[in-house]
Amino acid sequence: MSELMIEGRNPVIEAFRAGKEIDKLYVLDGCQDGPVNSIKREAKKHNVLIKYVNKERLDQLSTTGMHQGVIAEVAAYEYAEVEDMFALASKKGEDPFIIILDGIEDPHNLGAIIRTANQAGAHGVIIPKNRACGLTATVARTSAGALNYVPVAKVTNISQTIEELKSKGMWFVCADMKGTVMYDLNLKGSIGLVIGNEGEGVGRLVKEKCDMVASIPMKGDIDSLNASVSCGILAYEIVRQRLIK
Amino acid sequence: MSELMIEGRNPVIEAFRAGKEIDKLYVLDGCQDGPVNSIKREAKKHNVLIKYVNKERLDQLSTTGMHQGVIAEVAAYEYAEVEDMFALASKKGEDPFIIILDGIEDPHNLGAIIRTANQAGAHGVIIPKNRACGLTATVARTSAGALNYVPVAKVTNISQTIEELKSKGMWFVCADMKGTVMYDLNLKGSIGLVIGNEGEGVGRLVKEKCDMVASIPMKGDIDSLNASVSCGILAYEIVRQRLIK
Repeated sequence: MSELMIEGRNPVIEAFRAGKEIDKLYVLDGCQDGPVNSIKREAKKHNVLIKYVNKERLDQLSTTGMHQGVIAEVAAYEYAEVEDMFALASKKGEDPFIIILDGIEDPHNLGAIIRTANQAGAHGVIIPKNRACGLTATVARTSAGALNYVPVAKVTNISQTIEELKSKGMWFVCADMKGTVMYDLNLKGSIGLVIGNEGEGVGRLVKEKCDMVASIPMKGDIDSLNASVSCGILAYEIVRQRLIK
Repeated sequence: MSELMIEGRNPVIEAFRAGKEIDKLYVLDGCQDGPVNSIKREAKKHNVLIKYVNKERLDQLSTTGMHQGVIAEVAAYEYAEVEDMFALASKKGEDPFIIILDGIEDPHNLGAIIRTANQAGAHGVIIPKNRACGLTATVARTSAGALNYVPVAKVTNISQTIEELKSKGMWFVCADMKGTVMYDLNLKGSIGLVIGNEGEGVGRLVKEKCDMVASIPMKGDIDSLNASVSCGILAYEIVRQRLIK
């Protein structure tokens, strides 16, 4: 598994200046010299998440062994804008269907979800900037090519994005075990499907913004389903309802 | 990711004699001496798959560096019998619902499917002995505890098992893109859901044994869905139909 990493001071500063889409910047904690401060300024200017880590972690991330205190993780694909999703829906003459991920961390889950989004006819996937997996090489591979077709946008605040999209006439349903059984909800029309983090589910603030809370019937002895499987089941309940005339 | 591996001649022969459930035996290709031949005899007696590999592969699998030409992969969990699944269905007063995997290779997919089987109320999962992932430690972990509740049986020949279960009144549906849209099929009653290999789908011989071929509607630009996501969507179509009175 090789993510695209750029290591060392000059390479990282050049990547910023060349306009490369950088997902995350790892900086050696406590490092304060001139070149590193310039890199941090570039990162802030481009709104890139900075993670301060110790030397062991940097050495572990490094493949060249010459990180000089900075490693940038480059997005394998370009991010889209939420507007692109509305344009895609409109081009297809369909009600917008967007999948919003409230903090998916596993790249295999994110890749599988992007693959599902494509097959279920969703017009895009929205992910948060922080505490979530970005469009890494592993995600691209696991998406089995779907990343070439599905617009993925990265936003700073999921709750606020939901609020904005509601004002455009979209309805939001989030997945939660305590919700209404999905078969009993009306999931037709312009809809956003919100899937939570692998461990913690959908956050409280995000859940409060949603119009509906949907549950998948669970007959088992354990807590939950895999996040990408849950997303697939709910997305296809939306597909099923959309197919009913 | 550490699978349970037993390395070296004495440890492996002792594992067989202690009745440990061994999934696979790796043997150095061309190795013909007495102790190795005894181990191979034990493997055949217990119907364990033997893989002949070269030294590089054995060294790669080894964690101790002292494999002496043999490494046994131990199942993290005990396998069940198909009969256990019928007993479970009968105990719950439900029509049997069994998931049959025709060659799932990725342990994360197998784990996610066992998790789905538990939540969807399936009474067991059947996997083939050859060319498939067994119950490794990774599968156990990815199943999020479901492996403690879902009987998993390993059979020599999937087609033959389907034939036997058909004589017990079960119906079989397999997943294939060229099938009938799943919403248009009657999936009620005693049912076996057959999911194919990640790359190649359901094999021709197995497909011919099935009563129905179900497709998930695909609106996308790519070929297929992730195998565990497909399984989740189809299993929950069965759940939905079972809920309709």
